[in-house]
Amino acid sequence: MSITVVGSVAFDSVETPSGSYERSLAGAATYFSLAASYFTDVRVIAVVGDDFTPEDEAIFKARNIDTQGIERADGKSFFWRGQYTDNLNEAKTLQTDLNVFATFEPKIPAAYLDTDFLFLANIDPVLQRRVRDGLPSAKLVGGDTMNYWINDHRDNLLKMLEVVDILLINDTETKLLAGNRNPMKAAREVLNLGPKSLVVKHGEYGATAFFGPNSFKSLGLDAHHPFRAPALPLEEVKDPTGAGDSFAGGFFGYIASQPSLTPEVFKKAMFYGGVMGSFAVERFATERLQHLTREEIDERFELFRQLTHLD
Amino acid sequence: MSITVVGSVAFDSVETPSGSYERSLAGAATYFSLAASYFTDVRVIAVVGDDFTPEDEAIFKARNIDTQGIERADGKSFFWRGQYTDNLNEAKTLQTDLNVFATFEPKIPAAYLDTDFLFLANIDPVLQRRVRDGLPSAKLVGGDTMNYWINDHRDNLLKMLEVVDILLINDTETKLLAGNRNPMKAAREVLNLGPKSLVVKHGEYGATAFFGPNSFKSLGLDAHHPFRAPALPLEEVKDPTGAGDSFAGGFFGYIASQPSLTPEVFKKAMFYGGVMGSFAVERFATERLQHLTREEIDERFELFRQLTHLD
Repeated sequence: MSITVVGSVAFDSVETPSGSYERSLAGAATYFSLAASYFTDVRVIAVVGDDFTPEDEAIFKARNIDTQGIERADGKSFFWRGQYTDNLNEAKTLQTDLNVFATFEPKIPAAYLDTDFLFLANIDPVLQRRVRDGLPSAKLVGGDTMNYWINDHRDNLLKMLEVVDILLINDTETKLLAGNRNPMKAAREVLNLGPKSLVVKHGEYGATAFFGPNSFKSLGLDAHHPFRAPALPLEEVKDPTGAGDSFAGGFFGYIASQPSLTPEVFKKAMFYGGVMGSFAVERFATERLQHLTREEIDERFELFRQLTHLD
Repeated sequence: MSITVVGSVAFDSVETPSGSYERSLAGAATYFSLAASYFTDVRVIAVVGDDFTPEDEAIFKARNIDTQGIERADGKSFFWRGQYTDNLNEAKTLQTDLNVFATFEPKIPAAYLDTDFLFLANIDPVLQRRVRDGLPSAKLVGGDTMNYWINDHRDNLLKMLEVVDILLINDTETKLLAGNRNPMKAAREVLNLGPKSLVVKHGEYGATAFFGPNSFKSLGLDAHHPFRAPALPLEEVKDPTGAGDSFAGGFFGYIASQPSLTPEVFKKAMFYGGVMGSFAVERFATERLQHLTREEIDERFELFRQLTHLD
């Protein structure tokens, strides 16, 4: 079934120890939708400026992604300039220009109203909540956020967390949101805020899913049994940008492609998330995510299995 | 078959966010031997001072650990005072008194000369090499080291690495030893220095085993297939001290308990390492490692399996 994602479609200029690039197509919704497109149909809600070219749109179209929800506004697209130095897990932000995103009011195309799966990528939680309320048909909602919203817009974020089934954030965000440094306790605090499941992304160490009191208990997934998927140790990490959004795309895309959400599907989704994240970082920007095959994806899935399984 | 371990038997005073303790029995050889004792017979080579009491020795004896290699010297035992504040993965050293360890000359009891498995816990690599040369019967040698030896005693360390089959160190030490921050490349660099396998410990994220050009290739373990074991997310980490040594003890102890080193045994050993590390940190000092049962250990092994396996 199809996924609708709302989030940023942007341009990034990035410098890493392996090289640099200027104004490549990027943004959370872009990475998410490319990654998810290998599993299911994807629709995007975003806003871009007049610097968004037919060539940029062709990147979505080539992956069969529905772009009618990408609004064109006067001005420039969201722009981010970042740098990775020694620590590839942490970007240094050099420049953020919200541009057309500063006044973004998400508009939901009529054709998206039958959406079954909704992913709220990292934007203002007020907008995330509004999109969720505008798509009541969505039966499973995933979401992401970041330190800025946790620190400075907590009340709005809490209202968004009430309507998120699966929250995908990183270690730092989890501890900050919970006000607790112990991973298990922090997870429980976050799960008390609404989500049925919390997927904590650990960068090069993979990700751990926790299940809470409002959880998928009927599925046999509960707080006493977290689940951890690895990341693949890679020869070269060219560009960590978008790894988390690609994880979310692989994770949610796989779930949406399956007849129902069983524990087995959830666990495999964690592995597919790691797989798509590992592809994303192997090349600059979205390069690797544009031209994969399902065979390559399933081969890497098998590598992840061998990496972690006793037999 | 039995393991001989050489390393420190010491006293620690430690402060963590959960509390503190003064002068508890500790040291790498202590944590290692307690953890390994649940799998096989263990013999210790170390030196202690006149502050090492019959009660301290009784902790080893209760686990059937052979202490005839623990030499008594005039003076005080090795003492360490450390503090963990926010980051439980990193101790701040407040005081290190080498005491009788400053002039330690390891003596190998005649009864240890048939040793099959040898673990060189973190001490001066000159002494590690000397003990290895003094136990030519050892058919599998594990080893550990730390930043101090990597930075300031590199030549001696390289001579020790020539005779180590499995090196167990953490992320920081791996990158420092290799001079490379990429995990795969750093692992390859280290494996070029001698070890057949490198087990990189990631603290709360588990550990990854890499296999190199001098590797156990006959076993089907090679550089293209690293193996990752998780750590268990715990409700409370009371005291991270000794987690790495306990990992090594569970890992090496399990290997020594098996008829031969197969890929399956190696992978299970990685899990048992994580299991013993997770027990160690649940209580202060060696408290938890003193009173386990094999049933508790195997129950936790099963939790680790559920945490990582798709079915």
